[in-house]
Amino acid sequence: MPTPSSCLPPSLELFADFLRFPSISTQSERDADTRACAEWLVRLFQATGLEARIEETGGHPCVVASSSRDPQLRTVLIYGHYDVQPPDPVEEWESPPFEPTVRGGRMFARGATDNKGQILAHILGVAETLREKGRLPVNVVFLVEGEEEIGSPNLCGVLERLKGELAADIAVISDTGMVADGFPTLTFSLRGIAALEFKTLGPACDLHSGTFGGAVANPLTAAARLVASLHDEAGAVAVEGFYDAVRPLAAWEKEAAAGLPVSDEDFRKVAGVNALAGEPGYSAIERVGARPTAEVNGLSGGYQGEGTKTVLPSSATVKLTFRLVPDQDPETILQQVIAHLEKHCPPGIRLEMLPGHHGAPYVTDPHSPFGRAASRALERVFGQPPALLREGGSIPILGDFQRILGLDALLLGLAWPDNHAHSPNENFPLENLELGRKLNQAVLEEIAALPQ
Amino acid sequence: MPTPSSCLPPSLELFADFLRFPSISTQSERDADTRACAEWLVRLFQATGLEARIEETGGHPCVVASSSRDPQLRTVLIYGHYDVQPPDPVEEWESPPFEPTVRGGRMFARGATDNKGQILAHILGVAETLREKGRLPVNVVFLVEGEEEIGSPNLCGVLERLKGELAADIAVISDTGMVADGFPTLTFSLRGIAALEFKTLGPACDLHSGTFGGAVANPLTAAARLVASLHDEAGAVAVEGFYDAVRPLAAWEKEAAAGLPVSDEDFRKVAGVNALAGEPGYSAIERVGARPTAEVNGLSGGYQGEGTKTVLPSSATVKLTFRLVPDQDPETILQQVIAHLEKHCPPGIRLEMLPGHHGAPYVTDPHSPFGRAASRALERVFGQPPALLREGGSIPILGDFQRILGLDALLLGLAWPDNHAHSPNENFPLENLELGRKLNQAVLEEIAALPQ
Repeated sequence: MPTPSSCLPPSLELFADFLRFPSISTQSERDADTRACAEWLVRLFQATGLEARIEETGGHPCVVASSSRDPQLRTVLIYGHYDVQPPDPVEEWESPPFEPTVRGGRMFARGATDNKGQILAHILGVAETLREKGRLPVNVVFLVEGEEEIGSPNLCGVLERLKGELAADIAVISDTGMVADGFPTLTFSLRGIAALEFKTLGPACDLHSGTFGGAVANPLTAAARLVASLHDEAGAVAVEGFYDAVRPLAAWEKEAAAGLPVSDEDFRKVAGVNALAGEPGYSAIERVGARPTAEVNGLSGGYQGEGTKTVLPSSATVKLTFRLVPDQDPETILQQVIAHLEKHCPPGIRLEMLPGHHGAPYVTDPHSPFGRAASRALERVFGQPPALLREGGSIPILGDFQRILGLDALLLGLAWPDNHAHSPNENFPLENLELGRKLNQAVLEEIAALPQ
Repeated sequence: MPTPSSCLPPSLELFADFLRFPSISTQSERDADTRACAEWLVRLFQATGLEARIEETGGHPCVVASSSRDPQLRTVLIYGHYDVQPPDPVEEWESPPFEPTVRGGRMFARGATDNKGQILAHILGVAETLREKGRLPVNVVFLVEGEEEIGSPNLCGVLERLKGELAADIAVISDTGMVADGFPTLTFSLRGIAALEFKTLGPACDLHSGTFGGAVANPLTAAARLVASLHDEAGAVAVEGFYDAVRPLAAWEKEAAAGLPVSDEDFRKVAGVNALAGEPGYSAIERVGARPTAEVNGLSGGYQGEGTKTVLPSSATVKLTFRLVPDQDPETILQQVIAHLEKHCPPGIRLEMLPGHHGAPYVTDPHSPFGRAASRALERVFGQPPALLREGGSIPILGDFQRILGLDALLLGLAWPDNHAHSPNENFPLENLELGRKLNQAVLEEIAALPQ
């Protein structure tokens, strides 16, 4: 059990307790910590006044919590996740990733923004409403999963199994970003994702690069050439058919993107680079929101230690993910990429393919009645109308919510661009915990007030 | 101190004791083991009847040992090294790399072939001659260094300082390969080497590949593209000027190479690959002996653990070595490569260059009187005239022996093609310890017998 932080206000103590669990879903040695985090959440929901339980999935468990259901009221599904990314590279953290630390008005810890801070804000909002008014303006059901960071492999089963219990009018999710610090944002599109790991295999064992070099294909060179083959000189993805299904930006979207309070120069500063890169003909915000990518997230082979080792390695490993936009299909993309790699694989090298998780891109209409209710709630809390944003990240299960539960989602992100989600020194502004609590109350009220 | 192996003959016990030292020169945490190995060698030489001592270098020490010098006799410098390559990947060893194990008539351990077995054979040869005859047919001075695997950064200083003590007529070195198992081989050329590590640096910290991917240059992609740019489609090195100084093979060399008992198919089997690769227009044995290369020995960046991490990494590291042939100059090559990488570096990426050790390629005339003496010694011990070979490995200090001491070298290698030097399961045939001992005695006699 986490120990309480002694000198924080109660909501921050709670936040710190939540963050102390190293609930890293991709690392099996953290399974016990991940489950302990879910059990902690169940107790938190129960203390809030909701019925709550662990829902086993075969993998990391889900937490399901709901208010008593009044058939006269609309029902809102609030989704989030308690699992987090690995903290590597750990040495770049200014404070340990699982020892939450407040500095400069922000809470620093792995998962602070993605997604513990954001889902906690909703829990705090519901708790306060129940404490002050004794009842909620809508029926609420929380679904907080433990496998978002590994592609939610077991969530579809849960949605199918709990179809009745999770039936709702709309989903509300805070797991996206604000377009600029403090600028209210309604995200109406997210990119999809497809993951593929591959190995280049050459000689049966590592060879001496003097004795064999020049006559034997080097698996690292092959891996590098295959990665290089994924893009053309201008920075576009060079996999055949990759852009075939990409829906061009509508005129109103181009206009909305141009009106966002983020210039390429702002984007460059937040990214911490000396120059931007990418597909010609698009702004940075369009490149990350509306254009697909091929990224190498990890590559390794040969000698990694101090100094030199004149080895011709027997293999190399490449971890790729592709961010996809409407109407690209992840399985089609993976097939195209595998065909591309096989076509470009040099003689003397064999390929081993490990396709990973994937999820479809998501898009909805921000001008629907629910979209407008969300915009009103954001304006009430932040004092200005929200930016309408296509975001670059992925919440693969949004497609499953549509397909299985028939639910669209209101994406009310609370992450600032420099909150370092997935990076060292991830952090969450303390004010966003407070604003998120208020936003939960406002959006539930606005949804309740919609005409039948 | 290593413990003696209880059931081996004395020379094998000695060999096993030598191999137990993890004298990995590139790993500073092994400095004490490396020095202990040198001290063990000093005691061995002293027990053999030579004067021996540690010669400090500022890095890992050299061991110098010599017979009392008779001015009437020729003098032979016998060079070797007691340092070894790192054993990575350790999990691929069938027995631990520093627990020498005899299997199938071979001794398995890191350094068994490169170079502990080969230098020990010479020590055993001298010891036996002294034991049986009381004196040697030539004056002998051993120089056994501890930094060969890291490019002998301090050896030139030793050669300069001990010029008088190391003065000799010829050098004898067993640190090369036999062209086929048991086939006597006189190596007359070795490739040079130049090492370069570089980093591609992008964002100040790792970024979320969803939030930023598509608008920010990925340092791993950049590293892969730079590595890919080093070769053309056909497999030749694509660095401008790289081949300018390459001396073409002479007609007699082409003929000698064609007559070697190693077909491309033999080479393919020993390499353990399903197809050979490399520059068009050359046999495998020519590619490794007479043509230069650009090899990537290590590449790493991003997430290396289990599963997926959707990170856009802030940097990547590439370890390169170039094998060079007469008359390429290592410093010129490094300048050309650095210029090439800078020219091809994409926007948004900065490069950090760490040039490493280098050594010039080596070539001598196998038909000189000393060359012929070596051929006669090889024929006496192995029963057939030796192959004349250009070898792909590097002994960078051969150029220094020529320049500082005025010495050519007779390269009498005892390594079989499948002895896995620099690889897991490195091994040395026990019969080669015996044949090497005899070869030492024969070559010293043949050199003594040369007309004045």
